[in-house]
Amino acid sequence: MQFRSANSLSDPEQSEQALLRHIRSRAAQTSLSTVRLGIGDDCALLRPRSGEELAVTTDLSIAGRHFRLDWHSPESIGHRALARGLSDLAAMGARPIAAFLSLGLPRELSTAPARRRTQPTQSSWIARFLDGLLALAAAYNTPLAGGDLSESPIPIADIVLIGAVSRGKALRRSTARPGHLLYVTGALGGAAAALARLQELAAARPARRQPPRIPKKLEAQLAPHLYPHPRVPQGLWLVRHGLASAALDLSDGLSTDLAHLCEESGVAAQVDAAALPIHPPATLDQALNGGEDYELLFTAPPTARLPRTIGGVSITPIGRILKSRPGRPAVTLLTPQGPQPLKPQGWEHFS
Amino acid sequence: MQFRSANSLSDPEQSEQALLRHIRSRAAQTSLSTVRLGIGDDCALLRPRSGEELAVTTDLSIAGRHFRLDWHSPESIGHRALARGLSDLAAMGARPIAAFLSLGLPRELSTAPARRRTQPTQSSWIARFLDGLLALAAAYNTPLAGGDLSESPIPIADIVLIGAVSRGKALRRSTARPGHLLYVTGALGGAAAALARLQELAAARPARRQPPRIPKKLEAQLAPHLYPHPRVPQGLWLVRHGLASAALDLSDGLSTDLAHLCEESGVAAQVDAAALPIHPPATLDQALNGGEDYELLFTAPPTARLPRTIGGVSITPIGRILKSRPGRPAVTLLTPQGPQPLKPQGWEHFS
Repeated sequence: MQFRSANSLSDPEQSEQALLRHIRSRAAQTSLSTVRLGIGDDCALLRPRSGEELAVTTDLSIAGRHFRLDWHSPESIGHRALARGLSDLAAMGARPIAAFLSLGLPRELSTAPARRRTQPTQSSWIARFLDGLLALAAAYNTPLAGGDLSESPIPIADIVLIGAVSRGKALRRSTARPGHLLYVTGALGGAAAALARLQELAAARPARRQPPRIPKKLEAQLAPHLYPHPRVPQGLWLVRHGLASAALDLSDGLSTDLAHLCEESGVAAQVDAAALPIHPPATLDQALNGGEDYELLFTAPPTARLPRTIGGVSITPIGRILKSRPGRPAVTLLTPQGPQPLKPQGWEHFS
Repeated sequence: MQFRSANSLSDPEQSEQALLRHIRSRAAQTSLSTVRLGIGDDCALLRPRSGEELAVTTDLSIAGRHFRLDWHSPESIGHRALARGLSDLAAMGARPIAAFLSLGLPRELSTAPARRRTQPTQSSWIARFLDGLLALAAAYNTPLAGGDLSESPIPIADIVLIGAVSRGKALRRSTARPGHLLYVTGALGGAAAALARLQELAAARPARRQPPRIPKKLEAQLAPHLYPHPRVPQGLWLVRHGLASAALDLSDGLSTDLAHLCEESGVAAQVDAAALPIHPPATLDQALNGGEDYELLFTAPPTARLPRTIGGVSITPIGRILKSRPGRPAVTLLTPQGPQPLKPQGWEHFS
């Protein structure tokens, strides 16, 4: 389906057509040559370069699970939905070539923006959602090439990202080797600390149905949660230089994602607590277990010379990969009090 | 995301891991060489053949809009969700190479099947949903290469289909030309007639929370709605022989989909009511306006020699493409009472 069903939203036909035109006209602005045919037909058509493989990922965002209408602005919800998918591409070292959006919305959120108004008015929810999504898409050269629309009792958005990567060069999570060093991009815990602050703001505000207004001075502090930036350039750099032996993105929290890396690679790992780059004002616990930082966690042979920064983002060695041994915890945290097992404690924010 | 989040379902970790293992082991059975990396990493990796373009489509199925838990069996819901996407590929003449499934389910539907039971029990809802989806996937050589899972207050399934088609050969809906003839595959109205019968059965049964049991003698009659077969081989045939000038699939009903074809191609059309292949026991109204037949509607130059059947499915000329003229209806129906405007009247079944 390509944003085309005449009856998938029960709005009057005219209003739906206006919404489709709105999406189509805005998506067209980011169109690139890999997309041969965008919104409007039964399928979009993509023409990958020869010698490239395609990386495909889908990420479901559901109201009450991944976002809350009373906490998150429409712009942030759109941004975050796309960021999750872009981060999966970053983890494979793939260049984004197209995004698809399947969107289910209650009728009151799906009203197309009026074409002409005599008075400037606040934009509609869906226009603001697209503002957030398309601004991030533009920043990463990712055209919105299609999707589907439906009325839904609760807001849901499924984002599909398609990326390209040279054959055989994609970063995997199953290829970490004992003796290799463990690195992260950026700093950890910032998203969890920001979320905690957002919860306080939301609890303190008078009207509970709208997201809280973010004071100017807090914008930077809340950005790691509201507007995370996927590490696409860093993933591309790692593939181009062939230095990483394995990678994934930190969506569920370091303790959980590192456990996945170890399980898929059949290895163990140790992390040096003192080496962790913690995003102020986050705590160690938030850095270890807070999800949605969308930094990259990757491994490289000890002989690899990693720069201190890639594209302005810091690269920090935080531990090493070990052989897996029965009876030994998969992940160990080195602390001043000695080594401790690090159990997966990633958590679901909004349940 | 690749069926991997540790916390996207709030089931106990163990039960979710069992569900992921269940999906992964079953999906692996249909793996093909185009899929270089399936479920388990941040993205799936596809390696298209050189000279091919990729067709991508997403289709959202939402409980209460596209299916009903009290009308449709889990097998039918899984089948229908995938059929919608495969039909979009068929409409472009693309060969399916991979499917992705983003699935949001209430906790009670997402329980993984027990590994061992002393008594044989009814399979779980999700196992039966996958039965329906994977049986159709296998019939069309379509591996399930990834997706996402989440708990959701209502069941939703977003299906992503990726297909391959020779460069520049994909069938489009915007390329119909005046003078060309209009054809359909198969017969029309069968899905709408079956749905009407299903509604009767559902209304008559004593327990209203389960889908009605379908009597053996009605299975064939209800199949067009419960288990539609997308016309993938017919789409491939049309591309291979280069005979069709435009195509789309009949998902919303002939009156609505033909209006889309005319709008996208900037043409008008006339349909001969007497020529329509009507699926017994459907009415003319169901053939014109009933959705979800998933037949192909295509155009071909008058010089093209179309066979009477393609892959055992009938091919019927039903009208012709005309020049668009201001003031004349886009689509006209020729009837014994003379020509009548045919307005888009596709409808939403379950709203």
